[in-house]
Amino acid sequence: MASYSSAAISSWERFYRANFINSLTGFKAVSMIGTVNEAGNLNLGIFSSIVHIGSDPALIGYVNRPVKAAPHTLANIQATGIYTINHIHPGILAEAHQTSAKYEAGKNEFEEVGLTAEFLENIPAPFVLESRVKYALSLEEVIPIKLNDTFLVIGKLISVFVNEAIVSADGFLHLDQVESVCSNGTDGYYSPAFLQRYAYAKPGIPLQKIF
Amino acid sequence: MASYSSAAISSWERFYRANFINSLTGFKAVSMIGTVNEAGNLNLGIFSSIVHIGSDPALIGYVNRPVKAAPHTLANIQATGIYTINHIHPGILAEAHQTSAKYEAGKNEFEEVGLTAEFLENIPAPFVLESRVKYALSLEEVIPIKLNDTFLVIGKLISVFVNEAIVSADGFLHLDQVESVCSNGTDGYYSPAFLQRYAYAKPGIPLQKIF
Repeated sequence: MASYSSAAISSWERFYRANFINSLTGFKAVSMIGTVNEAGNLNLGIFSSIVHIGSDPALIGYVNRPVKAAPHTLANIQATGIYTINHIHPGILAEAHQTSAKYEAGKNEFEEVGLTAEFLENIPAPFVLESRVKYALSLEEVIPIKLNDTFLVIGKLISVFVNEAIVSADGFLHLDQVESVCSNGTDGYYSPAFLQRYAYAKPGIPLQKIF
Repeated sequence: MASYSSAAISSWERFYRANFINSLTGFKAVSMIGTVNEAGNLNLGIFSSIVHIGSDPALIGYVNRPVKAAPHTLANIQATGIYTINHIHPGILAEAHQTSAKYEAGKNEFEEVGLTAEFLENIPAPFVLESRVKYALSLEEVIPIKLNDTFLVIGKLISVFVNEAIVSADGFLHLDQVESVCSNGTDGYYSPAFLQRYAYAKPGIPLQKIF
């Protein structure tokens, strides 16, 4: 097994380091965030830093890069307070990755990449019609991470849209049945295959599988 | 497609809601965090809220639940400042899930679940010997998330240990080649299969695949 020190990693070429460090944390939740600004311009971007914050209330976070590097999504969320998160499946993977391109502020990524904006239940932010698991959030808090000028953006769940066939009897969502992908690094995409569910673990009690 | 409102979700039974909301964000990075307290007692716990914060400097975060629910890992990190994060593969999956059991403060989860503590390069926190991708962090900041009494714990990368065979020419790590798993919900585990890498996307330029 090879060992890499922080000093060595700091000395690496920028893109090599970004590829390595972005892979190191493991497979990631990847989705597209849909927003609208006050003028009604739509925006869509891919994010792989989505993180569960809590279930009751249902709070979901994502890390937004420094404003200079990634301005539009965060500005729109702060302006309108509402945004959508849309899962990705293999049939829309290339389009989803293309939303990572740095389009100018006025450009509508839905049109630029060939995805369809969808409006549901009077929610002002656009969903991705082609997406099979999607939900809307209302902004709760933007927490600055001063260490590197990023932001933890936390929203409260408003509405969820999902095929009821993947909702199991105990609430678990069989995301593989709608082919939700995960990502690795900045540009790798993977299709997860089910291995196992386990029951709630207790000290000294043999672990039970859930079937 | 079924629609679920926040009011409906709030009314659900607690475990049903937790299963559903934990699945909604998609497949997650899941790893074991190894720590030690000032008395030398070792601790190991599984976490599925690991999130990339930045590559330069290399900063990695995780969300720690409220202190009452998950006290040991965070207390040890705050006491010693150093912790390890260890990937999981199918051969240690049941052991990894078992670390989620609520063991008493003095219990050593390595011994309780049958994993091996490993000490590398004078790093005081324990690694998991059986893990195939592992890294050590030094605590940089604990950011309280007041919305639900959780914490974003951010560390700076100290050292990485990984099989050099999975490091590609551009720094990307082929995590599938060491069988790193991802998770879904609170208790589901998946094995990701490679789909595609794409080059850096630019507006108006056809997307290129990376081979």
